[in-house]
Amino acid sequence: MKIGIIGATGNTGSSLVKEALGRNHQVTALVRNADKAKSLFADTVTIIAKDAFAFNKQDFAGLDVLIDAISFPTQKHLAYDQLDLAAQLIHMFRETDSPRLVFILGAGSLRTDGGLEIDQLRKTPGAAAWIDTPEAQHQELNFLRTVSNVNWLGVSPSANYTVGPKTAYVRGSDDLLFDDNHKSEVSTGTFAAAILDELEQPSIHQARFTVRNK
Amino acid sequence: MKIGIIGATGNTGSSLVKEALGRNHQVTALVRNADKAKSLFADTVTIIAKDAFAFNKQDFAGLDVLIDAISFPTQKHLAYDQLDLAAQLIHMFRETDSPRLVFILGAGSLRTDGGLEIDQLRKTPGAAAWIDTPEAQHQELNFLRTVSNVNWLGVSPSANYTVGPKTAYVRGSDDLLFDDNHKSEVSTGTFAAAILDELEQPSIHQARFTVRNK
Repeated sequence: MKIGIIGATGNTGSSLVKEALGRNHQVTALVRNADKAKSLFADTVTIIAKDAFAFNKQDFAGLDVLIDAISFPTQKHLAYDQLDLAAQLIHMFRETDSPRLVFILGAGSLRTDGGLEIDQLRKTPGAAAWIDTPEAQHQELNFLRTVSNVNWLGVSPSANYTVGPKTAYVRGSDDLLFDDNHKSEVSTGTFAAAILDELEQPSIHQARFTVRNK
Repeated sequence: MKIGIIGATGNTGSSLVKEALGRNHQVTALVRNADKAKSLFADTVTIIAKDAFAFNKQDFAGLDVLIDAISFPTQKHLAYDQLDLAAQLIHMFRETDSPRLVFILGAGSLRTDGGLEIDQLRKTPGAAAWIDTPEAQHQELNFLRTVSNVNWLGVSPSANYTVGPKTAYVRGSDDLLFDDNHKSEVSTGTFAAAILDELEQPSIHQARFTVRNK
């Protein structure tokens, strides 16, 4: 497949690039910083460097899958761009079924303890420093759920999202997943592998799934 | 004030133009069809003609108020543009308080009978022919309610929105308004007057109001 990844140099993006290349897919890295992409990926990917909101349909031409893997940080007061970029991409592909649009969300929108994980996150001491990003990712999923004429997919990690290699995994839909020790964790490697598995063998449509390390 | 009106040639847009000019405001008509705008308004307004999604910040430069008065029709399967255009305008003015962005919504998102008017609308025989537009306007308000860093205002008419001159009016917030005969009606003239009153003397912020003929 031809897979475009917006935010390819980030933690999630770069593990997606690695996993996709390992499976012999063609990857286009859609990034802000061409030099950073070049130093990470050399000539293994096609690089298109622009501000995320400047990408246009031409940049995405020929892609089977377009993954929005940017996480806009609370710290720069840009978390709302999370939702705005999703809205722009969705608008670009209304009334189409290709490319498949994949949105990397947070764990905040997953159900747990009779509410949502975001309800717990809001109560965490010091949450003000980072809460805007999960809030925006939650709004992003709520927005996606209104969209019935685009081939979209949402993916949420577990509560602890760590940088690390892939393991076996357990997949779920809208509930935060825990292992037998009540640990909710997924590594970037596992997360990327689960996404590539879904892309190679689509099993859901206009829905979100989540994953944890087994 | 300098007031820009996207969709100025429509029923709502043209009554807003008339009311604004009558109060000596400067109006920019942001329209798709320059000829139609010229035939309606002659030289009383500035005309900028483009597709709604092609307007950019430069087109809106100097405006105190920007009103999105387009109603995208269900019939052309473009109702989702209702939400998408709102998202694009909001993105354009994140972290600003000017221009004030006014979104003309429908009555569907108003509370009535223990639910929302949209719940009643969905049950109306033949609703499939037009329901997508009120659904999209409802989504549009839900989206706006997530936005805390733009100076936005939503306005909903009453259940019956008729073309006609202005009368005295009653204003409400999120409940569908009825008169003593259980009639819920507002004319385009009244609707425009209520909006201009709010623009000249702002009383709410990041919220929606509704209005009925008295």
